[in-house]
Amino acid sequence: MSWIVEQSGFDPDKITINGNKFMQGNGALGYRGTLEEFTKEQLTACTPAGLYDKVGDQWREPINAPNGLSTRWFGDGEPLGLLTSRHESHMQSLNMRNAVFQRATTFVTSGGKQVEVRSSRFISMRKLDLIVMQVEVRCSEDGELTVETGIDGDVWDINGPHLEDFAIAEQAGIVGLSALTHELRQTVCVAEGIVWSGIDGAEMSVRSANSAYRKAAFACKAGQTYSFTKYVSVQFGEDQSETTQAAMNSVKEAMGAGYERLLSEHEREWERKWAASDVQIDGDDEAQFALRYSLYQLHIIAPSHSEKVSIPARGLSGQVYKGAVFWDTEMFMLPFFLYSQPEIARNLVMYRVHTLEGARRKAAEYGYRGAYFAWESQETGDDACTLFNVTDVFTNRPMRTYFRDKQIHISADAAHGIWEYYRFTGDESALLEGGAEVILECARFLHSYSYYKVDKNRYELLDVTGPDEYHERVNNNAFTNAMVSMTLEIALETVELLKEKHPAFCNELLAKLEFAGDLEHLRDMHRELYVPQPDPETLLIEQFDGYMKLEDVDLPTLKSRILNKNEYLGGGNGLATTTRILKQADVVLMLHLLKDRYSEEVKKANWRYYEPRTEHGSSLSSCIYALVASDIGSPDWAYKYFMKTATIDLTGESKQYVGTLYIGGTHPAANGGAWMAAILGFAGVRLTGGEIVVKPSLPQGWKSITVPVLIKGQQFRLHITANEVVIDSNSSNSTVQTFKIGEERVQAESGSQLTIRLDGAGSGGGLAG
Amino acid sequence: MSWIVEQSGFDPDKITINGNKFMQGNGALGYRGTLEEFTKEQLTACTPAGLYDKVGDQWREPINAPNGLSTRWFGDGEPLGLLTSRHESHMQSLNMRNAVFQRATTFVTSGGKQVEVRSSRFISMRKLDLIVMQVEVRCSEDGELTVETGIDGDVWDINGPHLEDFAIAEQAGIVGLSALTHELRQTVCVAEGIVWSGIDGAEMSVRSANSAYRKAAFACKAGQTYSFTKYVSVQFGEDQSETTQAAMNSVKEAMGAGYERLLSEHEREWERKWAASDVQIDGDDEAQFALRYSLYQLHIIAPSHSEKVSIPARGLSGQVYKGAVFWDTEMFMLPFFLYSQPEIARNLVMYRVHTLEGARRKAAEYGYRGAYFAWESQETGDDACTLFNVTDVFTNRPMRTYFRDKQIHISADAAHGIWEYYRFTGDESALLEGGAEVILECARFLHSYSYYKVDKNRYELLDVTGPDEYHERVNNNAFTNAMVSMTLEIALETVELLKEKHPAFCNELLAKLEFAGDLEHLRDMHRELYVPQPDPETLLIEQFDGYMKLEDVDLPTLKSRILNKNEYLGGGNGLATTTRILKQADVVLMLHLLKDRYSEEVKKANWRYYEPRTEHGSSLSSCIYALVASDIGSPDWAYKYFMKTATIDLTGESKQYVGTLYIGGTHPAANGGAWMAAILGFAGVRLTGGEIVVKPSLPQGWKSITVPVLIKGQQFRLHITANEVVIDSNSSNSTVQTFKIGEERVQAESGSQLTIRLDGAGSGGGLAG
Repeated sequence: MSWIVEQSGFDPDKITINGNKFMQGNGALGYRGTLEEFTKEQLTACTPAGLYDKVGDQWREPINAPNGLSTRWFGDGEPLGLLTSRHESHMQSLNMRNAVFQRATTFVTSGGKQVEVRSSRFISMRKLDLIVMQVEVRCSEDGELTVETGIDGDVWDINGPHLEDFAIAEQAGIVGLSALTHELRQTVCVAEGIVWSGIDGAEMSVRSANSAYRKAAFACKAGQTYSFTKYVSVQFGEDQSETTQAAMNSVKEAMGAGYERLLSEHEREWERKWAASDVQIDGDDEAQFALRYSLYQLHIIAPSHSEKVSIPARGLSGQVYKGAVFWDTEMFMLPFFLYSQPEIARNLVMYRVHTLEGARRKAAEYGYRGAYFAWESQETGDDACTLFNVTDVFTNRPMRTYFRDKQIHISADAAHGIWEYYRFTGDESALLEGGAEVILECARFLHSYSYYKVDKNRYELLDVTGPDEYHERVNNNAFTNAMVSMTLEIALETVELLKEKHPAFCNELLAKLEFAGDLEHLRDMHRELYVPQPDPETLLIEQFDGYMKLEDVDLPTLKSRILNKNEYLGGGNGLATTTRILKQADVVLMLHLLKDRYSEEVKKANWRYYEPRTEHGSSLSSCIYALVASDIGSPDWAYKYFMKTATIDLTGESKQYVGTLYIGGTHPAANGGAWMAAILGFAGVRLTGGEIVVKPSLPQGWKSITVPVLIKGQQFRLHITANEVVIDSNSSNSTVQTFKIGEERVQAESGSQLTIRLDGAGSGGGLAG
Repeated sequence: MSWIVEQSGFDPDKITINGNKFMQGNGALGYRGTLEEFTKEQLTACTPAGLYDKVGDQWREPINAPNGLSTRWFGDGEPLGLLTSRHESHMQSLNMRNAVFQRATTFVTSGGKQVEVRSSRFISMRKLDLIVMQVEVRCSEDGELTVETGIDGDVWDINGPHLEDFAIAEQAGIVGLSALTHELRQTVCVAEGIVWSGIDGAEMSVRSANSAYRKAAFACKAGQTYSFTKYVSVQFGEDQSETTQAAMNSVKEAMGAGYERLLSEHEREWERKWAASDVQIDGDDEAQFALRYSLYQLHIIAPSHSEKVSIPARGLSGQVYKGAVFWDTEMFMLPFFLYSQPEIARNLVMYRVHTLEGARRKAAEYGYRGAYFAWESQETGDDACTLFNVTDVFTNRPMRTYFRDKQIHISADAAHGIWEYYRFTGDESALLEGGAEVILECARFLHSYSYYKVDKNRYELLDVTGPDEYHERVNNNAFTNAMVSMTLEIALETVELLKEKHPAFCNELLAKLEFAGDLEHLRDMHRELYVPQPDPETLLIEQFDGYMKLEDVDLPTLKSRILNKNEYLGGGNGLATTTRILKQADVVLMLHLLKDRYSEEVKKANWRYYEPRTEHGSSLSSCIYALVASDIGSPDWAYKYFMKTATIDLTGESKQYVGTLYIGGTHPAANGGAWMAAILGFAGVRLTGGEIVVKPSLPQGWKSITVPVLIKGQQFRLHITANEVVIDSNSSNSTVQTFKIGEERVQAESGSQLTIRLDGAGSGGGLAG
């Protein structure tokens, strides 16, 4: 039960939300949770990872491939579909364990005949181009049924049309519909093969300029089941005929293997994923379900196949947010993969290596040295972020925003991600295969962006936008300066590491980058960089220079000033801009990232100060407030924020439209945030130096949480209750791992189980005081 | 004829404009050009210089004193006034030579009787608290006339009410109406005495809470003239009874002296002013008139009495612009006084000495050292400029502007003004009496504001607003950086000068300011400050970092985007903000100030580039385009801009209202700009090193221009035609002065006349190419 996302009945208002909620994917392909009879109007989308297109001056965005699952039924000549005809019952479900989507609908014809359609589909986690669907139909009375199934190239486009020059190929019953993208003339091909069962009507081709359907009409006996299985391959590539051939071959092969075998291969992959990552919560079914669902969403978009794609901010749920990769990946999703699937974490961080040239181009464009990563990154690393990202609702004019120009922390985040991969895995390969170069170039950029304040003897970072985008162009944003300081440290450590272990490589790299003089600069800057510190009196860390001079208005008052519900609170004239109201965790995010550097008192003071001033205009905010609330012993507050982040794609309560612009889609950062809130927060797990620290702070009602952890190839299972931590060290482990539980340090040997009692004190108090 | 500003007929729509156009004053008092029967509704205002008040959260602004000239006539019981009754004729005039305002109106009663009222008034240039008015009346038929004349305390307030606790005193027929200001409880007292002539009706008192009138009813014989003279003193001070007594004494004394003597004393002062400053243009009456009018406007607001007041941006024409002193004074008005009345120039620059503490407070408020002068300065030097200076017309919300925080060039301008005074007069007293301290503190502030860019080895000035306020918060504004460089130079020169000539004073000053370490900083910064230079290809100087990347839209296109005629083009979401359209001369102003440092080619290229992109949203803009057009040999273009700046208060074509907010008033910077365009531009006079350079570029039709010049106490008269320059050196001169005319250097000895032929070439070309 706790693995099934289910919905009974059909609510047309939920079509868009369900498209996200019942989403399927395999990291290479995303398929929205829509039904076979749906079209682009219902935001049907089959989105390949890493393929982008730009039409005219519009936003560059992913393309949606033709929909290979498109299927229309007719009973006695009448169309049968949830949007057009009566139905007696409808149910749709998604099994998170094997990622199979099912629907079962009983339609009723105008003559009162019941036609039951069931379908079941999966996006293969084994063959990443493959979608397989099985469809069954049964009638309550004898009659005539017609099915049209095929490939619908009339796709949903936000800033299209992206596909043109459609072509149809056919070989031995396998049909391929291909098209070219507008900008780069890449081929996208969707091929389809069908195995009919019991349906013996003559198959007819029904084709249009951009679609290829097959039509079969057959006599349907009452109570008898008729079915077919579709094998769909979605591929893209440079060459049209090669790509088409590859897709058709893949379909042919899949048809040969058959549904059952493909499903079982697929399920085996999913088993592996869950074994590595599933977290068990005992005592809170709701939290268990929401957390599992969050992990499901991460699994379906995680690129296991390529280090040239990363995870976009809206996953693979369509073209929203330009399919762009933001800092979300490193800061909100990467931890989950680092602790459970380092091979995917590696792909995610290597993506920055493959987009380094774009980052160099961006730095140069602004007159800086080094690598300034794209705020909105696509396949080349060039920045898809425009200078005008928001429309002013009062004038309908584009509004200048400073997301692209000023969020320099993106380069710090990218470097941080690479270093974290090394820290968690001990694998130097990412550093050697370009990661070190990225780190050095990021540090070089950040130095190049900095200024020295002569009369204060310090480096500063001016004119930046921190996580709180409602305050653009600020000086010495605490989060940014702390991240930059960390990047300088990482860069210097990287050089030390390479010097020691790969001296020739190191010399070559420094020479290639002409980095000799820079190293001295980085050392100076690291020593003299100003990072805002807690005020000795109030313990508050000012979010940026002058923040405390802004109007200190409370959130309800600010909201009472809103004249148009869609008005943007930031930007030049935004309501929040001149106040202390923030969009999302900013100082508090820093306190999470650098949790070891700040006292509990400082964390408490800042959490209490910033929390009521946070508008949570970003889905990245809640999880951070949850994490720090756990850290300061307030699991009640943490729980509230945890549930908010963990259910975001289940409830669909986030904003779906701004004006006519669809901005919905899934929220992988919030999903990753749910994992962080549970494991780094409630379970209190972290890796410090070589030690795994566990400092749990379980919410009320949670009897236990069980967490798989994989650090440097060593597998552990932590079973945590209010009173104890049980460590199971996998028998395949090759080294002894130090754990620090409370103040106690224990050594976990291969195959051993250790039980450590927790000190009973310290769980109360928290923010209540 | 060319001295009289005149208007026949009465146009109610011109009341506000005429209030500015017929303005009178003496530097201590301003009196708007309204009529005696007008009240606050017609923006009647008698504004003392240097007295400010603040009510609640409203803008701090000058107060308007009670109107001592208020007079109402009744003919056979009917009120007679331009606003309420019929009139047969009306004429009003202002004689610029002696600053006497006259009106003559023939009213017609409902019975058809003609009543002619004439009045004549002046604001004494000798006794600065004194206003004198003579009124005559004559009827066409016998009848009953009543006059009510007195002091009207129901004054025009923009952000008032400023006056409270009114009190009336009376001594020997002299009436004093006093009130206290709201904030500082200063007393303002207006006292009035009357001498009747031919009016023998019993004088009655008519008093209200805030007014004191006298009423006289008398039988009026046809054709006979009846008259009275009012002597009004306007004073303010700390103590109510002292101030009242002083005002009443002054009236008593004035009554003793009588109208004629007071007028002739007043006229003698005006003679002196014109002798020192009048410029004669032969061949262009229109230009002559407009230029003379511009000088008139400067004379009536120039503080001859105090170094604690300077000239506000709207002169003394009311409360507009908070009565605040901007950079306008130093950069646009000071040159006129430097060349003609150095004692007033001294007052203007010493004002910065007296407001230094306010500038120190402002610097400290923002975390800087030194002196950051107020963008909008009042009597204390604290900044009257608010952070929200404009109302967003689309939301009616206050809009954040960066006038106060970021226009750091104000401190450079203040230092520049002091140094210019020294350079033109050779008078070290201003430096010794605080001017040197101001210069050093300004330089210190500018250093403290600066940052060092390590990887470019240079100082930069970041996050500033230059003259072009449509582009706030820019980096390395060329004008600002050049002005800062100049300030550093001035500061270093000041120290050199003091060391050499006043070593003890110098040491004491440096010790008092703890300036030892700063000197080194200033030298470093002066050597390494980045000042944007002409591009070697295009010769263009980029207005600020990134300007050339902004949208290059033309002005008509930009204007076609305007949705609301009152919308502000700058600010967060302003239409000009993201384009290259500028509010006012910025780079071109720099080319004027540093005209010796840039080649004619550079000036031409930049004038041509920036001129079509300038919206002239400031009245400071036209004169600068005129000046540089003259400099590059385009007197035709210069003439167009000269006439625009010289007629601004004659035509009243500038913006008078933004929404309901009156922003009109006079334009002293444009008036000063007219003088600059004529003398520094067309006549081409300038002081370089010790030499007076003359490089004329006369507009078409100008036969000659004759200019008085006073440099270091030496008086000259320059008579300039297209072919020659005639230098008359006053016989009182004590030194020989070098002039450079074209390439020729001549020595002007005391009492001599030199005629230098001009090289005929070089007058063509200009911008036509």
